[in-house]
Amino acid sequence: MGKPDYNKFFASRVNYMYPSPIREAVAKIAYRSKIRPVISFAAGEPDPEVLPRDIYASLSAEVFKNVPKIVNYAPAEGVLDLREEIAKFMEEYEGIKTTYEKIIVTVGGSQALDIVARIILEPGDIVITENPSYVNTLLCWKHYGVRLIGIEMDDEGMKTDKLEEEIKKLKSEGRLIKLIYTIPTGQNPSGITMSMERRKHLLEIASKYDILVVEDTAYNHLVYEEVEVKPLRSMDKEGRIIYTGSFSKVLGTGLRVGWLEAPEEIIEKVRYSKQPMDMCAPVPSQYLVLEVLRRKLFKNIKLKAIEAYKHKRDLMLKALDAHLPELKHTRPVAGMFILLWLPEHIESYAFADALLEKYDVAVIPATPFFIGEIGRNVIRLNFSMAKPDLIDEGVKRIAKLVREMSK
Amino acid sequence: MGKPDYNKFFASRVNYMYPSPIREAVAKIAYRSKIRPVISFAAGEPDPEVLPRDIYASLSAEVFKNVPKIVNYAPAEGVLDLREEIAKFMEEYEGIKTTYEKIIVTVGGSQALDIVARIILEPGDIVITENPSYVNTLLCWKHYGVRLIGIEMDDEGMKTDKLEEEIKKLKSEGRLIKLIYTIPTGQNPSGITMSMERRKHLLEIASKYDILVVEDTAYNHLVYEEVEVKPLRSMDKEGRIIYTGSFSKVLGTGLRVGWLEAPEEIIEKVRYSKQPMDMCAPVPSQYLVLEVLRRKLFKNIKLKAIEAYKHKRDLMLKALDAHLPELKHTRPVAGMFILLWLPEHIESYAFADALLEKYDVAVIPATPFFIGEIGRNVIRLNFSMAKPDLIDEGVKRIAKLVREMSK
Amino acid sequence: MGKPDYNKFFASRVNYMYPSPIREAVAKIAYRSKIRPVISFAAGEPDPEVLPRDIYASLSAEVFKNVPKIVNYAPAEGVLDLREEIAKFMEEYEGIKTTYEKIIVTVGGSQALDIVARIILEPGDIVITENPSYVNTLLCWKHYGVRLIGIEMDDEGMKTDKLEEEIKKLKSEGRLIKLIYTIPTGQNPSGITMSMERRKHLLEIASKYDILVVEDTAYNHLVYEEVEVKPLRSMDKEGRIIYTGSFSKVLGTGLRVGWLEAPEEIIEKVRYSKQPMDMCAPVPSQYLVLEVLRRKLFKNIKLKAIEAYKHKRDLMLKALDAHLPELKHTRPVAGMFILLWLPEHIESYAFADALLEKYDVAVIPATPFFIGEIGRNVIRLNFSMAKPDLIDEGVKRIAKLVREMSK
Amino acid sequence: MGKPDYNKFFASRVNYMYPSPIREAVAKIAYRSKIRPVISFAAGEPDPEVLPRDIYASLSAEVFKNVPKIVNYAPAEGVLDLREEIAKFMEEYEGIKTTYEKIIVTVGGSQALDIVARIILEPGDIVITENPSYVNTLLCWKHYGVRLIGIEMDDEGMKTDKLEEEIKKLKSEGRLIKLIYTIPTGQNPSGITMSMERRKHLLEIASKYDILVVEDTAYNHLVYEEVEVKPLRSMDKEGRIIYTGSFSKVLGTGLRVGWLEAPEEIIEKVRYSKQPMDMCAPVPSQYLVLEVLRRKLFKNIKLKAIEAYKHKRDLMLKALDAHLPELKHTRPVAGMFILLWLPEHIESYAFADALLEKYDVAVIPATPFFIGEIGRNVIRLNFSMAKPDLIDEGVKRIAKLVREMSK
Repeated sequence: MGKPDYNKFFASRVNYMYPSPIREAVAKIAYRSKIRPVISFAAGEPDPEVLPRDIYASLSAEVFKNVPKIVNYAPAEGVLDLREEIAKFMEEYEGIKTTYEKIIVTVGGSQALDIVARIILEPGDIVITENPSYVNTLLCWKHYGVRLIGIEMDDEGMKTDKLEEEIKKLKSEGRLIKLIYTIPTGQNPSGITMSMERRKHLLEIASKYDILVVEDTAYNHLVYEEVEVKPLRSMDKEGRIIYTGSFSKVLGTGLRVGWLEAPEEIIEKVRYSKQPMDMCAPVPSQYLVLEVLRRKLFKNIKLKAIEAYKHKRDLMLKALDAHLPELKHTRPVAGMFILLWLPEHIESYAFADALLEKYDVAVIPATPFFIGEIGRNVIRLNFSMAKPDLIDEGVKRIAKLVREMSK
Repeated sequence: MGKPDYNKFFASRVNYMYPSPIREAVAKIAYRSKIRPVISFAAGEPDPEVLPRDIYASLSAEVFKNVPKIVNYAPAEGVLDLREEIAKFMEEYEGIKTTYEKIIVTVGGSQALDIVARIILEPGDIVITENPSYVNTLLCWKHYGVRLIGIEMDDEGMKTDKLEEEIKKLKSEGRLIKLIYTIPTGQNPSGITMSMERRKHLLEIASKYDILVVEDTAYNHLVYEEVEVKPLRSMDKEGRIIYTGSFSKVLGTGLRVGWLEAPEEIIEKVRYSKQPMDMCAPVPSQYLVLEVLRRKLFKNIKLKAIEAYKHKRDLMLKALDAHLPELKHTRPVAGMFILLWLPEHIESYAFADALLEKYDVAVIPATPFFIGEIGRNVIRLNFSMAKPDLIDEGVKRIAKLVREMSK
Repeated sequence: MGKPDYNKFFASRVNYMYPSPIREAVAKIAYRSKIRPVISFAAGEPDPEVLPRDIYASLSAEVFKNVPKIVNYAPAEGVLDLREEIAKFMEEYEGIKTTYEKIIVTVGGSQALDIVARIILEPGDIVITENPSYVNTLLCWKHYGVRLIGIEMDDEGMKTDKLEEEIKKLKSEGRLIKLIYTIPTGQNPSGITMSMERRKHLLEIASKYDILVVEDTAYNHLVYEEVEVKPLRSMDKEGRIIYTGSFSKVLGTGLRVGWLEAPEEIIEKVRYSKQPMDMCAPVPSQYLVLEVLRRKLFKNIKLKAIEAYKHKRDLMLKALDAHLPELKHTRPVAGMFILLWLPEHIESYAFADALLEKYDVAVIPATPFFIGEIGRNVIRLNFSMAKPDLIDEGVKRIAKLVREMSK
Repeated sequence: MGKPDYNKFFASRVNYMYPSPIREAVAKIAYRSKIRPVISFAAGEPDPEVLPRDIYASLSAEVFKNVPKIVNYAPAEGVLDLREEIAKFMEEYEGIKTTYEKIIVTVGGSQALDIVARIILEPGDIVITENPSYVNTLLCWKHYGVRLIGIEMDDEGMKTDKLEEEIKKLKSEGRLIKLIYTIPTGQNPSGITMSMERRKHLLEIASKYDILVVEDTAYNHLVYEEVEVKPLRSMDKEGRIIYTGSFSKVLGTGLRVGWLEAPEEIIEKVRYSKQPMDMCAPVPSQYLVLEVLRRKLFKNIKLKAIEAYKHKRDLMLKALDAHLPELKHTRPVAGMFILLWLPEHIESYAFADALLEKYDVAVIPATPFFIGEIGRNVIRLNFSMAKPDLIDEGVKRIAKLVREMSK
């Protein structure tokens, strides 16, 4: 027959799949960085310089030597000892009482979010999220054909009164709302941390209108101020929270060890779903994380990270105040990101392109993190991977371009 | 509202999800093994004793020390250098000319198979496989609501004349067949290796009737005899083959590094699908495999494995001939498994249960590897992880139970 | 490009679509009937000789003359006056209190059943039905990719204890059961009428396990004995019943006027679903039925039908008792059908073919009305359209063939 | 359990279902008309005054008397004689050579369009239409989760160069386009008739890019000028056209008799799909239409309609030219509608509301016929059902309100 017409074979589902909208920006930055020094505020990860790779090296060697079954499949749910350590970790660090039976180890928090979609979401389903929200979750859940509804945020996080309004409207149309997705602490991309009052209100709303909540806690361990950040899960009395956890933001994203904690009825489906997807999460990474937890190394790694990132955050905020006092930006108490609103007429993609080409500074257009026709003039600045001594200069160049493009 | 009725939220898709049908058998074996010594022919993995964990230990320490970005996300497609090494590997070991652009690194070969389903399969779709076939792929693809059609095998693999008959019948009903799934070398669970003639015939049929083929090459590097086992992919001139590769069976299943190689039109969709699923395959594992390939260690690891497994296979075949000459079993030239047909009236699950409880020997019922109402009396014997000095004794006990249950 | 490869365009859903399994049998009968006189027990409809076509002729002429908007679209929900008359009809004939707002006029009861599927059923969903059940509903709902589970019947209808067992099993697997489908009175194909006790039990079960029930009342007005046949809907206090009604079996199937009555929340979705499907049910038919109801003609038409069909039923039962006393058959108090179990070894399709070719008697193989591997030796006999003076002869020939094939 | 939570049972598909966006407007008009005389340009149907209801009355009486099987099911494909007459009709009136085997009688053209969706469209699928297009088809196809892409029109119909551009863009993204939907003659709502050049271009594009075309011919028989309007189907050499036909616009919409003509591979699926949906189209309506065709009455009914509607169209165009010379509107040579662009700032819904309440004139907001954020200021005027002597007055009032709202 000759070369097949592949379109004949694709599932219609592929029409919901698009390349990551920040991928191209990232590729340009990578390319540029090879040619010239670039000041990058584009990352979304911990700083490798801050991470204890030497510790990982020796732990890793140790587990390969001492644990024969490290080269074999782990159970689909994850290495049992690790699940037990994660249960303890959730109690110690998050104030959550749970048991290993309700925990499934995943390939990073991302896979946890994909599995949630796999067991819950179908074309036409309605999901409510903060607006903006994490672009990768939006992208992932779009694969399942869902309709995303974004709720405005302010300094205290998702405006829960707007949330309730939207829910009332949808209910009046007879719609079922499947999930509310929130990153309450150090949200990506906004850096905003939800106030305790809002957290409680969100839980009340979820209960009142019978909706499940996905709580993405990726940034829960990078908190720079004395603020109360109790996870929603720790206050949930009904079983409404699907909790996704990640070690990526403290221990490193490359390991790909995250988890999902949820009520048993949900975990049962997660287990059925997960096993044939990839058999199990990477076993050497699981044993590495297990040792980090067992030996109580997490706390120090975390404190060191917090110290470093807090310093960089302060530098960045100071630089923004100094060079761009007229522009609105968020003031994160947690996470890795600051969101910066450019003047209305400046389009984020064009700005990011020009900034890179003209001034060798890399930022991420925040537009694709927004749902609907808003956020066109917003960019995301990462401080966790920024070089401290280049932060001021980078922001200065941003300010310069803003002025040039404002003329 | 109180505790939610979770059924309200699940996607109907969950009705296609079931626990692994061999999971319970495996759990019983694990439990028994803790109490008493068990002779196990139940595994589906390489022998950790054969694997060079010390090499992994030092390589692992090395890459953690030397590669800062090992703690960061890799590109969704995989570490670029690894993709290039895999392209070379496919040429050297498989005679396949390809380029890194057509290769995506996955969380083991399993994830490659899941992604194939994700971009191609929808409820109602038709997939043809060998009968029996790998239970995990069947389980995974059932999640997508497909209709599986199994084609009988003999010593030369899938009976391609039966395949053509079945296709003709389906075409006459106006049906589209999306995929033919084959594990041509050392098939799981049968151990059968497809003859070159059949491979060519299968390719001809795929072309004639315009069907794509998924070639699962998990056991391609565990071949114990001088037989010709050119991959279908190496003979494909049209772009009909989606090739899934795995390092698991030689380097260890725990690493979770596999890949998918396919025509660009397909790879584009795979890329879109893969990225938000888990960001990337585990990075330390990727760098570990990269070093194994770069330093040309694969060959030795493989030869050592072949030597060990061949010896065990021979012991097992000899024991079967000696103690169970009356029963049909396969004589694998590759892979890790022998399929054994018990007398008609003996049901595999009951047999495996009794064997474990009474004689402390573990085997896997092969029934769930079969499509349709056949294979009820078949068990799968693994030799790769068996202890050489216990093989004869294990088979002897099987024979004993067969006789007892035949009375 | 030349002729398209249409398979490229079809939805995967088409794989759930098959020609009616009794279509071929019907076609053979039609063909044979043109050549030679055939005694037919194959119909599934009222006898046109019994129907008052002269009344329809004059009513029809009248409404065309007097109702200008008869040539225009009616509202999607149906002609308002007709909906009101149907509400009265349901009270008068069925003891059901309802209002026109909960009634949607459909293109026969068939469309009502299709719309139920359209708003409720998705691939993988579970539906429980009597076994056997109406082949056309099974066929229709299979289009939606559902999994059908059949519950054995006896003289009192669906065995509700078996129903509960099955539900318990499914619930223990964590499954959601969407619908129970029942034709409680004069079931097609069995002719069985569910006892009041079972009706109540079924309702209790639906409530206890939180399941909706579709009550197909197509044969509710053809009851030949003094038995209590209160519809489930009349006893439902919770809103669990989706009631499908039809005038087809009393007034004639050609008119294509049926209806669906359901709780408002469901009716809202039905309305949204129905309108763009076909704008509205045929308007002249709606006005014709409206006049039949308004002028209180239904009762007489019904009584005349009952008289005729009861007589034919009696003749058929008598003939079966006389000529085939050894075979099991149902003894309907309602409906149009008797189910006849042939000797185990006789396959229904082969029997029906031979009967037609050798003895010019037409029957319908009941096999496709069964779910699962049962019912292979069962045939359906219709008495409503049989010629009274040929019934005995027809059954005699059936008996003759049974004896011949039993040798 | 008490009242069920119905949301637990609904298919996610219901989220794609909405009430007709013009339904509310229509309801308001109906309500107002009961209280006060309303000049209505809101209809979408033939004028009942023009239709020969007396002929229908006598034909109807006749077929009820003479055709016993009129009260029985017809074949799912339609009454055979009618399918043959439709084949002849297509040749005589449309210059299309076809056979009854390729024709399925449906419940109006609407059902034909729904069945097309049922066998072809899945969530995520891409369909291209004229922009604006028939709101009911858009609504119906949205149920299937499709992505609608609208192509701008001018006086010659869909801009086929824009069509090709759009297709190229989608193809470059690797997308499959399933259908192009067109109403080439007297389009609803624009009244525009596609030029022969564009028709040919559209066909060329469909062939070049391998796409199927749905040609909706509802208005093909209401052409008021000497223009060439050969159906695309008559020029199709490859089998790319799915032709939907309707008698509604000439014989009356209430009858619900339409049809679908398509290549055999498609018709096979249509047949499988249609039968369990509703058994068959209404049989008395089928026989009525059959007699209209057989007795060659169609032509006269059509000519009478054309005469009446042409006259009304002329009156409306004249009134628009006289009272609203500054506004853009279409000048239809066929169909029933004129599209009128109000001044930019006037919103169609608000205008229609005010017009009805203040000036007792009914029009339909055309906004929901548009795809995307355009058409907010457009209304649809129907002339077929308008009273000739009120047209000028109605348009005058429209003009008055336009001026008032323009201040």
